[in-house]
Amino acid sequence: MPIPQSAEGRKAYELDRAHVFHSWSAQASLDPFVFAKGDGSYLIDADGKRYLDFSSQLVFTNIGHQHPRLVEAIKKQAETLCTLAPAHAVASRGEAAKLITDRLPDSLNKVMFTNGGADAVEHAIRMARLYTGRYKVISQFRGYHGATQQAMNISGDNRRWPNDYGAGATCRFFGPFLYRSVYHARSEEEECERALEALENLIAFEGPEAFAAIILETIPGTAGFMPPPEGFLPGVRELCDKYGIVMILDEVMVGFGRTGSWFALDQFDVTPDLVTFAKGVNSGYVPMGGIGLSDDIAHFFDERAYPGGLTYSGHPLAAAAAAETLKIMADEKIVENAAHLGNDVFGPALAELQDKHPSIGEVRGRGAFWALDLVTDRETKEPLSPYGTVNEKMKQVLSVCTANGLLVFNNMHRIHITPPLNLSDEDARKGLAILDNALSVADEFYVGAK
Amino acid sequence: MPIPQSAEGRKAYELDRAHVFHSWSAQASLDPFVFAKGDGSYLIDADGKRYLDFSSQLVFTNIGHQHPRLVEAIKKQAETLCTLAPAHAVASRGEAAKLITDRLPDSLNKVMFTNGGADAVEHAIRMARLYTGRYKVISQFRGYHGATQQAMNISGDNRRWPNDYGAGATCRFFGPFLYRSVYHARSEEEECERALEALENLIAFEGPEAFAAIILETIPGTAGFMPPPEGFLPGVRELCDKYGIVMILDEVMVGFGRTGSWFALDQFDVTPDLVTFAKGVNSGYVPMGGIGLSDDIAHFFDERAYPGGLTYSGHPLAAAAAAETLKIMADEKIVENAAHLGNDVFGPALAELQDKHPSIGEVRGRGAFWALDLVTDRETKEPLSPYGTVNEKMKQVLSVCTANGLLVFNNMHRIHITPPLNLSDEDARKGLAILDNALSVADEFYVGAK
Ligand SMILES: Cc1ncc(COP(=O)(O)O)c(C=O)c1O
Ligand SMILES: Cc1ncc(COP(=O)(O)O)c(C=O)c1O
Repeated sequence: MPIPQSAEGRKAYELDRAHVFHSWSAQASLDPFVFAKGDGSYLIDADGKRYLDFSSQLVFTNIGHQHPRLVEAIKKQAETLCTLAPAHAVASRGEAAKLITDRLPDSLNKVMFTNGGADAVEHAIRMARLYTGRYKVISQFRGYHGATQQAMNISGDNRRWPNDYGAGATCRFFGPFLYRSVYHARSEEEECERALEALENLIAFEGPEAFAAIILETIPGTAGFMPPPEGFLPGVRELCDKYGIVMILDEVMVGFGRTGSWFALDQFDVTPDLVTFAKGVNSGYVPMGGIGLSDDIAHFFDERAYPGGLTYSGHPLAAAAAAETLKIMADEKIVENAAHLGNDVFGPALAELQDKHPSIGEVRGRGAFWALDLVTDRETKEPLSPYGTVNEKMKQVLSVCTANGLLVFNNMHRIHITPPLNLSDEDARKGLAILDNALSVADEFYVGAK
Repeated sequence: MPIPQSAEGRKAYELDRAHVFHSWSAQASLDPFVFAKGDGSYLIDADGKRYLDFSSQLVFTNIGHQHPRLVEAIKKQAETLCTLAPAHAVASRGEAAKLITDRLPDSLNKVMFTNGGADAVEHAIRMARLYTGRYKVISQFRGYHGATQQAMNISGDNRRWPNDYGAGATCRFFGPFLYRSVYHARSEEEECERALEALENLIAFEGPEAFAAIILETIPGTAGFMPPPEGFLPGVRELCDKYGIVMILDEVMVGFGRTGSWFALDQFDVTPDLVTFAKGVNSGYVPMGGIGLSDDIAHFFDERAYPGGLTYSGHPLAAAAAAETLKIMADEKIVENAAHLGNDVFGPALAELQDKHPSIGEVRGRGAFWALDLVTDRETKEPLSPYGTVNEKMKQVLSVCTANGLLVFNNMHRIHITPPLNLSDEDARKGLAILDNALSVADEFYVGAK
């Protein structure tokens, strides 16, 4: 990335290279952007260059950068009371909990707050284990839940490979994903049926009384945005009821408007027992995550202590940011705008791009979350970059975006379009035009091209 | 606690009871304070009553509540750039990393940021495992490292019992603690020698090539503040070198001035490979934790990717708060004041209290961290409340503090005095007078009293 010209920018770059250890990376080859400011759907680098943010960073700035009302609310809480131990009560914490539960299914009325997604998942699984008195957990391949030990162990993602020791007794199955079906299915219905059958077979052969929880991303996000067929989540709910298993939906990435509804689960006929969230809850302005608990599970801990916690559970500053974020989203109809972006802008425009660019194998998306599954051959569906990698070809495609001032979210052979939910139609089209150019580079790697 | 009179206070109380799931607790019996404001060493409840905070909440508001310079720095960063993905660079993150490494031993020059203590510990253990290619970990009983699965598994604390499944292959030993020696030692030297011998025996019989890491709180905090004898940590370092084990010191609670030096490890002749921190790094104003890495371990990940991360690693707002906290602490000589409080105020005053109150079995402390080990008999050292519990007797003692406007940190049969490090001598004496009263209640339970 461009090394900053300004003295301040250079200093920030140098301090970063000297002292910051970056996650998920080999440290020697890093060459980070230095960002200095934010402005709605834009980030501004140390030399004043503006980048249109189609990534929402790691899919969390759902209301964009530096939303004035949210900045004001953080400043106000900072002036009042920045911090407080979890045992006490404080207005912002109770208000955030109420506003969140208002958006959750009726039977979920309590929130335990955490600092992010991974610890939300950790505590959700602990609750399920204590509630059921069982240990094993089921999760799906092509899913990610965080990088603490338990969260990593249930992640069906190649990031688990180098550092998982199998210590969570997790069993994984393939969720429905027709485009790359492992079930040889030819329709969504068939894919759905077979995935549920695989799940029930797994339960039967691992021990129907063994499982504490099934945890699923409502719609797998990082793994490529694969909305399950209509019947899948209700089918999982049925299996959970049949076998006494707690159903956890992980809404860390898809919650808070991302897919055009408050939670992605609103688009399916399903009520989970626990919902994990983070990111969009306050657009990441202050670190926060949490778990929505069903009344049954919350009451289970009425008379017996819940044996878990963390120093910053319900942090007042993070909670004030969450409460204000939810009010802003309602007042400015930001969830509605996400749905509009999906239905009226990205949906049609990406279908057109797919017609034009053979390298787009499939377009999947809802609201403000879209994935372009890039291939070198639509017949074989050969991914542009092999599973678990971002190869040179993929990097070339991505560099066209960056060079033209567009940040996208990339995972393996996929480009994810996950802008702020209050992106303007105009900016959407601007970003799509840059993508159009980048995809021409992807086309060059298509089988038989040139 | 007093249910607030004001309408606002009542509302905060009710929203909390209806929607907030509190950690470490049975939910039905909770009766939280509602706090509305902070002011240095004081918290102010919803009806305006002031409480002197000898707890620093969970031992994290090291520079007190609502420090004006820190509030200003948070507001300024909030106006500039609240949030950013970990992959990029931003001035506040690099600055915080530099200021932290400046205070760490010379050989630790990089920081990986997390959201709190538990995830710092999780990542430190992952680093040690990858670096050594080994799996098992040694920790000590009477230690706490957090409540995510791996952090919990290495915690030698009764909080682990209800929800640990042994999945971390941790081996635990008793660290040195002469007052309640398990080694039948009669001097600090003997206790030190025997604890090191026990540790080496454990290594020998669990497999000298099995261990990735030894993790210790430099001075165990929550477990009762037991400073190890001078030779202990250097002895552990020697064993680590002998067997190729990574030495992790957990400074989450004792770091950043708490014991009268920047890190507690400064008081011992020892250089660890990894240091975990959180809490005091920014006085908890914005959630943040992290790991200081030795050059060796940092370079290990120069060419190979570190397979772990989290969405809010190096959060700009939290980092700005950390950078400013470290500057404030230096400018206002806050670490020096912590040492002064220990040497000139708490040390002598608590020795006097011990002379007066038979219920004080032992006083242990340094700087602004003191533990009163309450007993019903100095001969047998019978704790006022049995291990793992806070019984009615203990609750009576504590309620005298609260009723008189003093917040203390309690664990089992101990009262911990952990005020802000910039507490005034006057406020120190004010709190000590209230404690004096509370201890008279403890004396009533002393064997043969009345
Ligand atoms: C679905 C899902 N769950 C959990 C997590 C982990 O969240 P965090 O990085 O805040 O620990 C993520 C992060 O991307 C996620 O996408
Ligand atoms: C020494 C130590 N390590 C780790 C932790 C866990 O930190 P957190 O509660 O932020 O996860 C604590 C918390 O009290 C601690 O005292």
